[in-house]
Amino acid sequence: MTQKIAILGASGYTGAELVRLIATHPEMEVAALSGNSKAGMSMAEVFPHLRHLDLPRLTTIDEVDFKGIDLAFCALPHATSQAVIRALPEDLRIVDLSADFRLRDPHQYRIWYGKDHAAPELQQEAVYGLTEFYRDEIRGARLIAGTGCNAATGQYALRPLIEAGVIDLDRIVIDLKAAVSGAGRSLKENLLHAELSEGAHGYAVGGGHRHQAEFEQEFSRAAGRPVQIQFTPHLIPANRGILATVYVDGDSDAIHGALSARYAEEEFIVMLPEGEHPSIRHIRGSNYCHIGVVPDRIEGRTIVIATLDNLTKGSSGQAIQNANLMLGNDEGAGLRLAPVFP
Amino acid sequence: MTQKIAILGASGYTGAELVRLIATHPEMEVAALSGNSKAGMSMAEVFPHLRHLDLPRLTTIDEVDFKGIDLAFCALPHATSQAVIRALPEDLRIVDLSADFRLRDPHQYRIWYGKDHAAPELQQEAVYGLTEFYRDEIRGARLIAGTGCNAATGQYALRPLIEAGVIDLDRIVIDLKAAVSGAGRSLKENLLHAELSEGAHGYAVGGGHRHQAEFEQEFSRAAGRPVQIQFTPHLIPANRGILATVYVDGDSDAIHGALSARYAEEEFIVMLPEGEHPSIRHIRGSNYCHIGVVPDRIEGRTIVIATLDNLTKGSSGQAIQNANLMLGNDEGAGLRLAPVFP
Amino acid sequence: MTQKIAILGASGYTGAELVRLIATHPEMEVAALSGNSKAGMSMAEVFPHLRHLDLPRLTTIDEVDFKGIDLAFCALPHATSQAVIRALPEDLRIVDLSADFRLRDPHQYRIWYGKDHAAPELQQEAVYGLTEFYRDEIRGARLIAGTGCNAATGQYALRPLIEAGVIDLDRIVIDLKAAVSGAGRSLKENLLHAELSEGAHGYAVGGGHRHQAEFEQEFSRAAGRPVQIQFTPHLIPANRGILATVYVDGDSDAIHGALSARYAEEEFIVMLPEGEHPSIRHIRGSNYCHIGVVPDRIEGRTIVIATLDNLTKGSSGQAIQNANLMLGNDEGAGLRLAPVFP
Amino acid sequence: MTQKIAILGASGYTGAELVRLIATHPEMEVAALSGNSKAGMSMAEVFPHLRHLDLPRLTTIDEVDFKGIDLAFCALPHATSQAVIRALPEDLRIVDLSADFRLRDPHQYRIWYGKDHAAPELQQEAVYGLTEFYRDEIRGARLIAGTGCNAATGQYALRPLIEAGVIDLDRIVIDLKAAVSGAGRSLKENLLHAELSEGAHGYAVGGGHRHQAEFEQEFSRAAGRPVQIQFTPHLIPANRGILATVYVDGDSDAIHGALSARYAEEEFIVMLPEGEHPSIRHIRGSNYCHIGVVPDRIEGRTIVIATLDNLTKGSSGQAIQNANLMLGNDEGAGLRLAPVFP
Repeated sequence: MTQKIAILGASGYTGAELVRLIATHPEMEVAALSGNSKAGMSMAEVFPHLRHLDLPRLTTIDEVDFKGIDLAFCALPHATSQAVIRALPEDLRIVDLSADFRLRDPHQYRIWYGKDHAAPELQQEAVYGLTEFYRDEIRGARLIAGTGCNAATGQYALRPLIEAGVIDLDRIVIDLKAAVSGAGRSLKENLLHAELSEGAHGYAVGGGHRHQAEFEQEFSRAAGRPVQIQFTPHLIPANRGILATVYVDGDSDAIHGALSARYAEEEFIVMLPEGEHPSIRHIRGSNYCHIGVVPDRIEGRTIVIATLDNLTKGSSGQAIQNANLMLGNDEGAGLRLAPVFP
Repeated sequence: MTQKIAILGASGYTGAELVRLIATHPEMEVAALSGNSKAGMSMAEVFPHLRHLDLPRLTTIDEVDFKGIDLAFCALPHATSQAVIRALPEDLRIVDLSADFRLRDPHQYRIWYGKDHAAPELQQEAVYGLTEFYRDEIRGARLIAGTGCNAATGQYALRPLIEAGVIDLDRIVIDLKAAVSGAGRSLKENLLHAELSEGAHGYAVGGGHRHQAEFEQEFSRAAGRPVQIQFTPHLIPANRGILATVYVDGDSDAIHGALSARYAEEEFIVMLPEGEHPSIRHIRGSNYCHIGVVPDRIEGRTIVIATLDNLTKGSSGQAIQNANLMLGNDEGAGLRLAPVFP
Repeated sequence: MTQKIAILGASGYTGAELVRLIATHPEMEVAALSGNSKAGMSMAEVFPHLRHLDLPRLTTIDEVDFKGIDLAFCALPHATSQAVIRALPEDLRIVDLSADFRLRDPHQYRIWYGKDHAAPELQQEAVYGLTEFYRDEIRGARLIAGTGCNAATGQYALRPLIEAGVIDLDRIVIDLKAAVSGAGRSLKENLLHAELSEGAHGYAVGGGHRHQAEFEQEFSRAAGRPVQIQFTPHLIPANRGILATVYVDGDSDAIHGALSARYAEEEFIVMLPEGEHPSIRHIRGSNYCHIGVVPDRIEGRTIVIATLDNLTKGSSGQAIQNANLMLGNDEGAGLRLAPVFP
Repeated sequence: MTQKIAILGASGYTGAELVRLIATHPEMEVAALSGNSKAGMSMAEVFPHLRHLDLPRLTTIDEVDFKGIDLAFCALPHATSQAVIRALPEDLRIVDLSADFRLRDPHQYRIWYGKDHAAPELQQEAVYGLTEFYRDEIRGARLIAGTGCNAATGQYALRPLIEAGVIDLDRIVIDLKAAVSGAGRSLKENLLHAELSEGAHGYAVGGGHRHQAEFEQEFSRAAGRPVQIQFTPHLIPANRGILATVYVDGDSDAIHGALSARYAEEEFIVMLPEGEHPSIRHIRGSNYCHIGVVPDRIEGRTIVIATLDNLTKGSSGQAIQNANLMLGNDEGAGLRLAPVFP
């Protein structure tokens, strides 16, 4: 029997990506779409690339009838999600794609987001959605906090290394190159094609990016001690894809070994042979993450490079992977689309 | 039972696109891959975006064992295909993606390609692969001649208008904008990113493009009289997609009506409401073709704009759609992937 | 003695382009910069690429002291210019880059812009700024109406042909491909890099673009009878440059001859040898316009292709060329920057 | 009196960039152009963007008459330069843009380039062309070794810090993002627009890039002790520009102070206020280098970000700056072109 899916906040890029993936998902069907600012419009008007699909019209959230809905994806802006989710039926399974439930500690939330959390009890309940590391909890969870797309990329590169104890925890630099769809459909001058197409620049340089908080929460948890890292994201003139170049102190064989062992059974994490490294052009539109390891000329230093598509494995694909677990589906159902290249 | 597929010439873009589409096709499986210049290599080396798939190694064509192969896609360069296909088993179903069998008239072939055809008997046998217009012949055919990607785009816009007699046959201008993957993996200076990314220029201006021959063959056949058109392709700095802006003399209501009637039952041809027109950004990576009709301010003139993805609906998707017909599959099997946007 | 220049509306792309060009102009100096919404800011904040220059701060227009100003460039949004210019000192030389004074006929203005003109007397006084065709009037003018960038491109291709009587005036199609900086710094979803970088689409299809009015005003004047054309602009994923593909009925030798004769003495209009055609990549950042002529396979039809940089020859470069004439400078002073390629 | 300039190897991007800059240089004139593979062609055929200039035809190097030539730029491929320059007149001033004379130590040359140097005596004579740090030697030199473009960017960020002793010499990471024109006009699959336009990947990861040798030669010299660094270049989908993100251990105030003091009098090196950082979009086509300094959240760590145009300040602009010194011109003559944005 088809699983009925609601997508709240369907007028942004992650919402559209959910619809794209569900369009060929063997078990799921889009039963409701909300988008307050575009309520009343058809998806063909908001996203003409979905014009061939038979989809419900966009409504306000209030108009959504949650009876019969098996799971809701919540793709609302940060800070909006918490109030909305609090008001949803208590037994509704929810995968939230915003930043609202990523941080478990209310104090940290206040530091990074500048105000108190509106639903601290849900903050405690939410399971962090990095599938490969929280699979068991996700299976039984009601509310999932989808990870940041940058945070996912860095964690795939680093988490097994921290767990295996093969790197120096005080010497971690993540230099990240992010395509622009990660910024969402925001109308900003520096996201205009005329400005970005020949642009490249850092942002939140020096440790101010909110995904930093996720890194440190998760790495500290994995290490059993506080871990601070350096993290510098850059915007590059591409649409989709994140490339994280990670500088660590550690032996490259041990590092490649730890990653390979950890991901041997993971369908969507693909290790490259040692010495090779990946490109964003090879994961576009897919749920695959490619990871490479290269030793530096300086003894004892290693470079790990990971790449994934921010809209797919970094958010909407991850969300569906988690939903598959929650609904008892094959974990990879609907997610085996091969990358689009060129 | 899974259908065993061979792809000859798998190291080019259309070969890679066939593999991408077959990766999630419910009936087909890649059983053999050839690529003479890269024989011995794995597909992961040639196309790292396919790294997650379990694929046979590339071999030479001679090494392919055609026993048990249900159908071969031939994605070889123009002029190479004819000799190769002539040497294949006589009962093998073949979908050829090259230009070799598109022209039925040996004389026209000589004019446009500068030499005699090496397999004129196959030239007669081949069925032209524009699915929506040759469906019945394709179903029973052994050899399909895939269309040119530009030729497909222009025909989707114009063919029903010629058949319905609603436009002036002596006043047809196709101004076409083509993304660069249509040029294949050719190493030419003007295809380098440094030169093309801020470039846009016409090519084969004045009627020299070989797809012109296809247009005139097919339009003359549809019209029952010789039809000559003006066709100017341009290269634009995008990867995938063709946008054909077609200028005709005719009434826009009649034109929109004729197209809508003709495509009412066609799954992959999507008509826009009259007055709207499409963008290449909305069909990327998909088998869908979007068509719009807009009246000009000058009475009696109309603009038809059609768009499709040159690698999918324009070649490899079309090839699989035809193969589905030949093998008795659901015509759209494996082809309902939604476009990738953004 | 240095000429003191004021730029009103310096926070948009054409304003920035004026500053860029004046930075190496041998006679001019930027003496005042206004930008109401960014008044108080330095140009380095608004346009960091101008950071190395010693420029006045942005002020409101009211704060500009016009005493000692030799000439003002007015780079304000359409419809804003007319009121502002009306209030400027009566003896101030002005080059307006907006659309406000391009149409001479108040009635046409009302049709295309939807309201009455606020300064109809200035509308009569203004000289149309297509330098090569209005040079003598420009030299003595006080107020210049800079042309539309699309309108300039099409006129360079067509105007000499109309004057020479070598084409059919009822069969003119301009299919134009425009880079995105022509849309200005407008915050619109379809101008975002994520959406445009793999996009291409028509706009104002069917004759609705306001530059159409300029075409018809100027072509009718040149022909001595009403001329209507078909004009379809398209947006392509490039920053700078316009490529106009113009379809005409006429003999290609006569057409190439008429253009070559007309532009023989023009420094900034470069004719290509017959049969060759230009690319936008070769005029970027410069004041040069390249024009090519190719005969079509259909007897008696010809394709003319013209390209120029919308921000330079299409607006700010043109503006300076006109200002040079008004101020008695060498016409090409400051404008001989070679195109930036790659 | 005009200085007569020869450009050897004028058919590559740096050759074209030299011609572009000399086109508006007040003292220089292109007197000879060589390009062996394109000898006999006009520059308009090889680089249509230079079509408006009156330039000599391309010849072979042997055909160049060096009598009356004041200075030769040598823009030949690496390893070709040394033999060519050895054969040039002994009193000819030469600025070499290749890698051939950058390393002073014949042993290091052999390690990094895999063979013995063909002109070791010239290797000793050559002055390293980083203008701001070798100005006095350059003024009196006959042969200049232009720096690598990546090497220049990294040195502008780091050299004053090493000289001032404000950073830990054993903890330097340069993560560099380079636009594709730095790869030259090479015909490689991964430089094709179809592959690169949505691509981003590291290359020579782990310390294998030859500019590494320059870094270590120059930094060791500045430090008075051996310095090894980590350097990972990445290719991004842009045409022009390098962005170097440099991670150092040191106090950000001291670092910003050292850079600001060192560059206070430098026309082409522009320091941003502390806490700000630059973008490649703001230096395109210009000889300016922008540098920013941002403290990291981790005490005692700082990020320095530098950007310049690889073809201008990184090679051809630098070459002209050096030539200006050698010929007694104003050092910045012809180099004050403002960046092209957008």
